[in-house]
Amino acid sequence: MRVFGIDCGTEFTGYGVVEVDCGARMPRLVHLAAGTIRLNKKEKTPQRLAQVYAELTALMTLHQPEIVAIEEVFFSANAKSALKLGQVRGVAMLAAATCGMPVAEYAPLSIKSSVVGYGLAAKEQVQFMVRRLLNNEDAFDSADAADALAIAICHIHTAQTLELQGARR
Amino acid sequence: MRVFGIDCGTEFTGYGVVEVDCGARMPRLVHLAAGTIRLNKKEKTPQRLAQVYAELTALMTLHQPEIVAIEEVFFSANAKSALKLGQVRGVAMLAAATCGMPVAEYAPLSIKSSVVGYGLAAKEQVQFMVRRLLNNEDAFDSADAADALAIAICHIHTAQTLELQGARR
Repeated sequence: MRVFGIDCGTEFTGYGVVEVDCGARMPRLVHLAAGTIRLNKKEKTPQRLAQVYAELTALMTLHQPEIVAIEEVFFSANAKSALKLGQVRGVAMLAAATCGMPVAEYAPLSIKSSVVGYGLAAKEQVQFMVRRLLNNEDAFDSADAADALAIAICHIHTAQTLELQGARR
Repeated sequence: MRVFGIDCGTEFTGYGVVEVDCGARMPRLVHLAAGTIRLNKKEKTPQRLAQVYAELTALMTLHQPEIVAIEEVFFSANAKSALKLGQVRGVAMLAAATCGMPVAEYAPLSIKSSVVGYGLAAKEQVQFMVRRLLNNEDAFDSADAADALAIAICHIHTAQTLELQGARR
């Protein structure tokens, strides 16, 4: 299974591609790619959205994941920033639909629980565990890319758990 | 000048295409098209966004407007609905960028002022004036299409005013 995680943001959008290698004795997480789409602040919103869309569809076409995983959003922030974040999120989901990939959404609590084992873990703990689980010290170049990898790992863990539950029935 | 107005919504997205005919003695507004994109509630969000994107790009390609006008959003609603609206709005702006058309944004107050002459006008007053200004009793099939036409008319009025101001200098 290959998962494309996205951490949407109005300035920086992180992405991370993780695969499960079942060839080993134990299923192993493999880090395939991660990075940050940095939006040009000088551009107007439609052009920025076009940049996110173009880069995401190119990356999805390149990596051919089976599924795209994004964070569900809950709001401490105000409605104005929610609208702006929604614009980027809409374009990210459209990119997945265009590439024919389903989208799974995970709540921040689930993502942290799945990666660190604790839903209220700090950012640094998540980043530490992402490096550890992927066995890669240079797994990401930004906090956003780390979050995107965490989202992808969360999907893999959730899918594995669901499969185990199914097998036990 | 030909303007493509969009009224974004999470269920219904209205559009309206209006042109200025300068061939007459007085510049005259011409109603070219208006309609409503009704999203399939049974579909998931990425597929719904793909539908809005596909229909908007097809309509923009068909009508070849010089500019796309959308409403600026202010919030009485909560952050959750702002995020959902943002997703549709992001896709609408992306459609304009894909078709190479600039996007102009207008505040609801400006739109009502421009069409009715009063920023706090009721929905019915706006609809009455849209029919009147376009001289077309069947100008729209929904409240969303009426709002989209109002946004397009607002852009034309604003552009005419700016041009007059420029000419007077």
